[in-house]
Amino acid sequence: MSRRYAILAPGHFAHDAKTAHGVIAYSADETVAVIDPASAGRRVREAVPYLRSDAPIVGTVREALAFAPNALLIGTAPKGGALPPDWRAAVLEAIDAGLEIVSGLHDMLGDDPELSAAAHARGTRIWDVRKPPHTPIFSGAAYEVAAPTVLFVGNDCAVGKMTVALELARAAERAGKKAAFVPTGQTGIMIAGWGIAIDRVIADFAPGATEQLVLQAARSHPDVIFVEGQGAINHPAYAPVTLALMYGAAPDALVLVCDPARAHIESYRTPTLAYRELIRLHEALLATVKPARVVGIALNTRKLDDDGARAAIASARDATQLPVDDVVRFGPDALYAAIAPHLRKGTPCAE
Amino acid sequence: MSRRYAILAPGHFAHDAKTAHGVIAYSADETVAVIDPASAGRRVREAVPYLRSDAPIVGTVREALAFAPNALLIGTAPKGGALPPDWRAAVLEAIDAGLEIVSGLHDMLGDDPELSAAAHARGTRIWDVRKPPHTPIFSGAAYEVAAPTVLFVGNDCAVGKMTVALELARAAERAGKKAAFVPTGQTGIMIAGWGIAIDRVIADFAPGATEQLVLQAARSHPDVIFVEGQGAINHPAYAPVTLALMYGAAPDALVLVCDPARAHIESYRTPTLAYRELIRLHEALLATVKPARVVGIALNTRKLDDDGARAAIASARDATQLPVDDVVRFGPDALYAAIAPHLRKGTPCAE
Repeated sequence: MSRRYAILAPGHFAHDAKTAHGVIAYSADETVAVIDPASAGRRVREAVPYLRSDAPIVGTVREALAFAPNALLIGTAPKGGALPPDWRAAVLEAIDAGLEIVSGLHDMLGDDPELSAAAHARGTRIWDVRKPPHTPIFSGAAYEVAAPTVLFVGNDCAVGKMTVALELARAAERAGKKAAFVPTGQTGIMIAGWGIAIDRVIADFAPGATEQLVLQAARSHPDVIFVEGQGAINHPAYAPVTLALMYGAAPDALVLVCDPARAHIESYRTPTLAYRELIRLHEALLATVKPARVVGIALNTRKLDDDGARAAIASARDATQLPVDDVVRFGPDALYAAIAPHLRKGTPCAE
Repeated sequence: MSRRYAILAPGHFAHDAKTAHGVIAYSADETVAVIDPASAGRRVREAVPYLRSDAPIVGTVREALAFAPNALLIGTAPKGGALPPDWRAAVLEAIDAGLEIVSGLHDMLGDDPELSAAAHARGTRIWDVRKPPHTPIFSGAAYEVAAPTVLFVGNDCAVGKMTVALELARAAERAGKKAAFVPTGQTGIMIAGWGIAIDRVIADFAPGATEQLVLQAARSHPDVIFVEGQGAINHPAYAPVTLALMYGAAPDALVLVCDPARAHIESYRTPTLAYRELIRLHEALLATVKPARVVGIALNTRKLDDDGARAAIASARDATQLPVDDVVRFGPDALYAAIAPHLRKGTPCAE
């Protein structure tokens, strides 16, 4: 049965509700309403112009129920991943109305005694998207995957790594290739209906969990595998997840996704890295296990106008001599065509 | 109450029982017997010459009970960390005899229905050393710690990073400094009685858990903090843990611990890195967040004779122009004296 989502994103929808935006933009499931008192009365596309949806934004769960949702999706992931106390009442109200709860929070709502008892009593389900399965330690089996594997890395969190992976997968399909998208975070999992939130896996097992995802994608014999990226290699908190994807996915090529306006990693004082430094650092690490090169750069130029975007793209191209584009603003076909010839299987290091 | 350990390491004690060896060498708790049919009838120092213990090695839990242990320690950590099926009977026999169970396995023995029911019925305790507490996301508070912080990194797992940290902490104390040892793995926790097994922490939280350990160590106002290292930066499975320690501990200096005989990372085909490559890669990563330099190298020359060890040390010194020694073979005082002048607080990157 397909889902009809009410998306809960109080106070966040117009700004940083990245899960909500991703699901609205890319999921096959329909979003019938968004709950955010700060934007109530507007339509989705009015609050977030690049989302092509006329779904209404309302102030409460009660109002959202008028649009007949069958699931409540937690549409933003607060830092640390706990359920904010004032959202609890909204979740309970949705359970009471018989909605399935879909959550990407670190805190497992299904393990919360009050919420799980309420869902059980009402006969509805809590899907904790981030709950990882048990997976083995990295084995090296990913080195034997036949399809070239592309990993997305970036200059910060939340710059559009998942979006670029999804857009390039569409472009590959349009070019006649069978493309597999590998979800590694909560939004990607909600969109694709499978995957593992690698940031939620026990550190020792994170590369192995990534490897299992690539092996699973390979079973459908794709021509190319696009692995959603996470974090950034110099992110003080999330870099271990980035490195787990780099070694665990055993990529043959990298695509760098950057927001050129970011000066610092999230709220840290750590400066973001320049393109060439990012390329050098990722390639130096992978060269020690299985070499792979950065084959293209996707810029997120959302904060710029068209001229500004073109200037940023030209500047990145000058600095790196690589194909550069904004796949949201200008479409993914040109960047895909530019990188496609460089998607070939590589081999791991061996003495 | 102090512990009197029977250490369970069937088939492994003479070779790779790194937890058993670490506890025997450095814990204040006494080991009264080792259980390993493969070495039964010998003494500890006969099976593992560098351990100065006359404790007997026996074949069964029953025989070990004659030496009046009050705790059974799981003395080796199989890859993946699950309890091998044939060890279950031994653990149950120890519980039945009223012994506390001390385990560093990934699988939580306290969550095992049969073992936890048995322990409950017998009124004894299961201490799952690796069970992590809830800790916050990395905040940057570690940057404000007053004492210089030293992190140990290496060319592979199980090369002696914990041992070198403990030996240099002893040398610092002998030199009149107050030194704090920060345990980040199961053996270190068993020895020091506190700490967090960072490899068992959810990936997103691993740098934050490391930061909490450093903050806890700082509360006793040490002159220097030595943080136990884990894994290796090009370990296909465990590198994310290494990186979590590098960013989370916010070190001011690194000490490189290498076994020069290792050609490959554990059982992977990944080659180990040369000294200069290791130094370059660690320093390049830390330069993006908080710069720190490698200030010395500790070699594990266990497989060499004295002449071979001296040659390996000279070769590493030539290649790197850094202080190099084997702190087990030649004692830690010389290496500590050589690195001490370089232990100064650094500052994180900022634009």
